[in-house]
Amino acid sequence: MTEQGFTATDHAMMARALRLAERGAYTTRPNPMVGCVIAHGDEVVGEGWHQRAGGPHAEVFALQAAGERARGATAYVSLEPCAHTGRTGPCADALVAAGVARVVAAMRDPFPQVDGVGFDKLRAAGIVVQSGLMEAQARALNRGFISRIERGRPWLRVKLATSLDGRSALASGESKWISGEASRLDVQHWRARAGAIVTGAGTVLADDPSLTVRLEDDTPFEPPLRVVLDPGLATVARGRVREGDAPTLYIHAPDAKPPRGINAQLAAVPVREGRFDLDAVLRLLAERGVNEIQLEAGATLAGAFVSAGLVDEILLYVAPVLLGDHARPMFEGLSIDSMAQKLKMTIVESRYIGQDVRLLLRPEKAD
Amino acid sequence: MTEQGFTATDHAMMARALRLAERGAYTTRPNPMVGCVIAHGDEVVGEGWHQRAGGPHAEVFALQAAGERARGATAYVSLEPCAHTGRTGPCADALVAAGVARVVAAMRDPFPQVDGVGFDKLRAAGIVVQSGLMEAQARALNRGFISRIERGRPWLRVKLATSLDGRSALASGESKWISGEASRLDVQHWRARAGAIVTGAGTVLADDPSLTVRLEDDTPFEPPLRVVLDPGLATVARGRVREGDAPTLYIHAPDAKPPRGINAQLAAVPVREGRFDLDAVLRLLAERGVNEIQLEAGATLAGAFVSAGLVDEILLYVAPVLLGDHARPMFEGLSIDSMAQKLKMTIVESRYIGQDVRLLLRPEKAD
Repeated sequence: MTEQGFTATDHAMMARALRLAERGAYTTRPNPMVGCVIAHGDEVVGEGWHQRAGGPHAEVFALQAAGERARGATAYVSLEPCAHTGRTGPCADALVAAGVARVVAAMRDPFPQVDGVGFDKLRAAGIVVQSGLMEAQARALNRGFISRIERGRPWLRVKLATSLDGRSALASGESKWISGEASRLDVQHWRARAGAIVTGAGTVLADDPSLTVRLEDDTPFEPPLRVVLDPGLATVARGRVREGDAPTLYIHAPDAKPPRGINAQLAAVPVREGRFDLDAVLRLLAERGVNEIQLEAGATLAGAFVSAGLVDEILLYVAPVLLGDHARPMFEGLSIDSMAQKLKMTIVESRYIGQDVRLLLRPEKAD
Repeated sequence: MTEQGFTATDHAMMARALRLAERGAYTTRPNPMVGCVIAHGDEVVGEGWHQRAGGPHAEVFALQAAGERARGATAYVSLEPCAHTGRTGPCADALVAAGVARVVAAMRDPFPQVDGVGFDKLRAAGIVVQSGLMEAQARALNRGFISRIERGRPWLRVKLATSLDGRSALASGESKWISGEASRLDVQHWRARAGAIVTGAGTVLADDPSLTVRLEDDTPFEPPLRVVLDPGLATVARGRVREGDAPTLYIHAPDAKPPRGINAQLAAVPVREGRFDLDAVLRLLAERGVNEIQLEAGATLAGAFVSAGLVDEILLYVAPVLLGDHARPMFEGLSIDSMAQKLKMTIVESRYIGQDVRLLLRPEKAD
């Protein structure tokens, strides 16, 4: 189904459903963000969004708000309604029971237990079903969830603060602070939408970061899992990364021996030539329901993910300072011998954040 | 005189004069850009701008256009009218002769032969004179001229194309091309307003640049002087930097022996510990009437100017590519040991140029 069969009203309603969906960005994990609008023509009679995993789906909120006025209405949903009884009842059944006449979805649910079954149920009940309206926007919204389901690994965002001359720290390792305060506050919002914030043992030792989300207002969020890649579990006994409400997971080499009496989550991942199998790290986090990873690590670990071709986007805060040619590079171990080998990115967005410039970059697609 | 005594009409007319002045950006060197508007209230009766050194000044064009209507009018000039007989007659006398009633200037002319004398002449003739309207904008427009007159050295702009990771070339020296075609076209406009394009012998050997101005349309421009810093005159016999219409100057060490039969401009500058006295290089170019320098050199020479604190702005084309940590740095020899020593800049402007981002940066002022 192309978008050609949809009206301007359909587009407006779906845009509204997508905006509603995004309200769940900090809380719905590991579930996708979903928004729902129920309308008769231009008149909205109910709307809702999925707020928390385990809580009601977007359609349930919208149907509750619409009540009897759902009968004969069109339901706009940013994702195919579910057909299975998970932690909540199937939304497809609820839409049928409420008597909606038409369901417009932005995309099919790639989750194997749904994937078209929701649409089939609705059609079997005589409801007109259309899918594909603003699908690109819907896929962009849930790129983490889609990555986890379709690729078996989370969407990987590398957050970096660098100087104009591309340096992430001084030769001494000192990196506090390259970017300005506004940038450091901005980072918190990107952390809040991640399922996991990943760092390396080196950063824990050098910077002792807490890796928690600190928002300026009381916006609710689900604390992201903090993940430390620490082959020998050298940092497991200490550090601010163990403090606070957020859970912490240490990923270690199979032969590492955890110190006694340590009350932390642990998981072993294969190590090859002294380096973690980064594919396996990502698979492990996907299995734990992580949709989006924010990597906040030093040049070595960040460089390893880039060299492995596993980076989906770079969130780069460029501070207007020079740190000199003795300072540490942005990515270590990234060896490029000719211009033809240069790693091409696309600048998705460029904006000022305080005195800095924030660039959002994605690898240029080969296809 | 503050701007408080000026009306909205005064501001609008001076803004117009400044825009007119800027039309001379590629041609007036070594003279400053000047624009002039002659008006009765809101009604413009004549306008002009200084087009070429040796040609008529802005006031002359504007008075010619106004004719008899200059009598009793206000003349808005972006720079104090000249009082001396240089290659053209004094503009102050012409304004008196035309019978203008009031002269509003954006700034005094810092040139020692003017510097208030023009105003005195006008006042002596009974003309109302006010200065300081939009002075900041006027000074910004002629920052090169003002730098040369007030500091005895040109305004120094470093043009660089770097990767996201702050690299200016591969380890092999290869740098064609980091930035995109749109950026390379954009650079031409910045070259056109420079009095000199400066490079080093290393860049001549590695890249063989022509350092000429290549505009896409037939906008007139005065070809900037091409300057090669070449202590031993190793490159003087060859290269595209010798071709074309633009003049070329080789700056060499005092003990260098020019090869016989070389028809090129030569100038000796003291060398200390194998490096040019960069202050002396800049003084020499100022004495030759260079207002603005565009430095297009490799990391070594660019780094030397930065380390010497002689850089006034950096024109940075950031291409969305990664070149890896073996590639050459943005500035070589820039040694910074603590965050307190970092060189702070201000992002004056950030914009997309094709697929790249162009940043215009100036050192954060200590005062």
